[in-house]
Amino acid sequence: MTLLRPDPDTTPFLLAARQLPAERIPVWFMRQAGRSLPEYKRVRGEGTILDAIADPERAAEITLQPVRRYGVDAAILFSDIVTPIWASGFGIDIAAGVGPVCERPFASPADLERLRPLDPSTDLDFQTKTVELLVAELTPLGVPLIGFAGAPFTLASYLIEGRPSRDYAKVKALMHGQPELWHRLCARLADLAITTLTAQVQAGASAIQLFDSWAGALRPEHYREFVMPHSSRIMAAMADLGIPRIHFGINTGELLSPMADVGAEVVGVDWRTPLQVARRRTGGRVALQGNLDPAIILAPRHVLDAEVQRVLDDNDGHPGHIFNLGHGVLPQSDPDQLLRVVELVHAASRVS
Amino acid sequence: MTLLRPDPDTTPFLLAARQLPAERIPVWFMRQAGRSLPEYKRVRGEGTILDAIADPERAAEITLQPVRRYGVDAAILFSDIVTPIWASGFGIDIAAGVGPVCERPFASPADLERLRPLDPSTDLDFQTKTVELLVAELTPLGVPLIGFAGAPFTLASYLIEGRPSRDYAKVKALMHGQPELWHRLCARLADLAITTLTAQVQAGASAIQLFDSWAGALRPEHYREFVMPHSSRIMAAMADLGIPRIHFGINTGELLSPMADVGAEVVGVDWRTPLQVARRRTGGRVALQGNLDPAIILAPRHVLDAEVQRVLDDNDGHPGHIFNLGHGVLPQSDPDQLLRVVELVHAASRVS
Repeated sequence: MTLLRPDPDTTPFLLAARQLPAERIPVWFMRQAGRSLPEYKRVRGEGTILDAIADPERAAEITLQPVRRYGVDAAILFSDIVTPIWASGFGIDIAAGVGPVCERPFASPADLERLRPLDPSTDLDFQTKTVELLVAELTPLGVPLIGFAGAPFTLASYLIEGRPSRDYAKVKALMHGQPELWHRLCARLADLAITTLTAQVQAGASAIQLFDSWAGALRPEHYREFVMPHSSRIMAAMADLGIPRIHFGINTGELLSPMADVGAEVVGVDWRTPLQVARRRTGGRVALQGNLDPAIILAPRHVLDAEVQRVLDDNDGHPGHIFNLGHGVLPQSDPDQLLRVVELVHAASRVS
Repeated sequence: MTLLRPDPDTTPFLLAARQLPAERIPVWFMRQAGRSLPEYKRVRGEGTILDAIADPERAAEITLQPVRRYGVDAAILFSDIVTPIWASGFGIDIAAGVGPVCERPFASPADLERLRPLDPSTDLDFQTKTVELLVAELTPLGVPLIGFAGAPFTLASYLIEGRPSRDYAKVKALMHGQPELWHRLCARLADLAITTLTAQVQAGASAIQLFDSWAGALRPEHYREFVMPHSSRIMAAMADLGIPRIHFGINTGELLSPMADVGAEVVGVDWRTPLQVARRRTGGRVALQGNLDPAIILAPRHVLDAEVQRVLDDNDGHPGHIFNLGHGVLPQSDPDQLLRVVELVHAASRVS
């Protein structure tokens, strides 16, 4: 284990995830690998993004690009939350400018059969190879690799709506109208997440992030009833692997406490909720990750500087802070602005 | 005033808005007038929705339909938040299945000229006539009419993005990058709102709602700096008209306190934030409106019943509660389900 992964007792990201002091505040960016980088466009290639994800050499190169350019404190596997569903043969694609789309959305018990269990050695071999390539490059640099998977609610939203949704009307109609089917669907999606994450960690990932990006569409009682049992099962399956577990969604201000209760060491906070509010709501039992508004990357330099400082001030020196955006990097972001954020966060660490 | 409007001392909606006990819990639904009703489809007519809004007889009929069908405790003018911008000749339309779209979005100081001040007697005469027709029908029934306008942030988001947005990247880029232009734009939009709302109240509206539907895209500090001054000016201009002022947005859990501070008597709460949490955050200084998840209308009857009760229990008998959905009625809603909500809320009032 010590040879496979960066040292948990000296690596800033791994220390902050356990709320322990580190030599600097760790920083990385959701969606740091991908569309906003010119070097990404050079290696991305033709075809759907899933083709690039399924090509270990290319996926590893794309994962490494932001590490080289920005000096971030963690790499995140270049993949997508729908990758395991795609690998299962359900019939999902990522349409340019739209997002995940299903030609035949999930609608009935018969559709459960389209979500067959994954065999990591065959279905996810491309991902295991990518992780192995990455760990060989990253561990000597002391940079941990974050693996990830989509949480059942967010994945179910794509499967049921058939595309990104604004109101989640069909998802909620199925959830409330056919709760047994809902729970069976989520159980399958949780299985996919467990298989995916376990394979990533066994191949050398140093942390995992469970993306429940859209869970904030639910009120807390519905989150607790329909989502939490499944996300908790995923996190429980990861508990003995000795790696930090991050849980993230947007619009989750009212869900931060239950999202910590699923068994996460770190909870992601979007830019709407000040970190000190998030820390109060989670009672200090988890580290926080966030929470610069991704749109601030598009602002002038002096605004960017002030807003980075605002997040740092809001955190007030708490060791349990992993600096990040409150959501993914916007495609139109200037890489120099992201580099500036890394420089500012690391410089602030030296001062404080 | 007493002849023009329902009696503020006996009308449930007007009492609850002042946090005073009423004979029943008032209930109405955002977007109660419109697409979900078959009788709406019969009178809607050809052309854009703005054509129907600009036809006083038709707009009044559409406004009255849900009052007749549901027995709701308030009517809301059939209009749209972009109506005043459309009336100003800026060049905005409402595209079916999309929402507000601008062919030439707002991008520079020159575009300010396209937002000319409105003369209510000519530019908004159709709306004044609609309100007068409605008040003549509604006041004898004891049903108050709610007028409304869009708040500067939400209107600016359509003008700058040119269409509904998921990330508000362009809006925020302009806000942070050209703050002076931002404030000049918002000042013009506030003027439009003041003109619109004043005309509605002078024609007999019993309350107004300021829709800042998308303000929840901002973190609290940015809301306070870039939005609140303009919304406060609108509310201040309404202060002496003697009518309750409602302020509403979604994803505003962290903004409820400043949204109350703009000078509202009532703050709308989306379904994400429990009413007791919202009441704590607003310190009891405003009445609350909400907050059933609109998607619950699509759920089976027994779920609907339980969820209505959940909202009532959450409010725990507080007199400052106007029952509503947490956002607008979804177009695919069954009117019988909305009727059921009204029956349940009114029945609960009699028991308690």
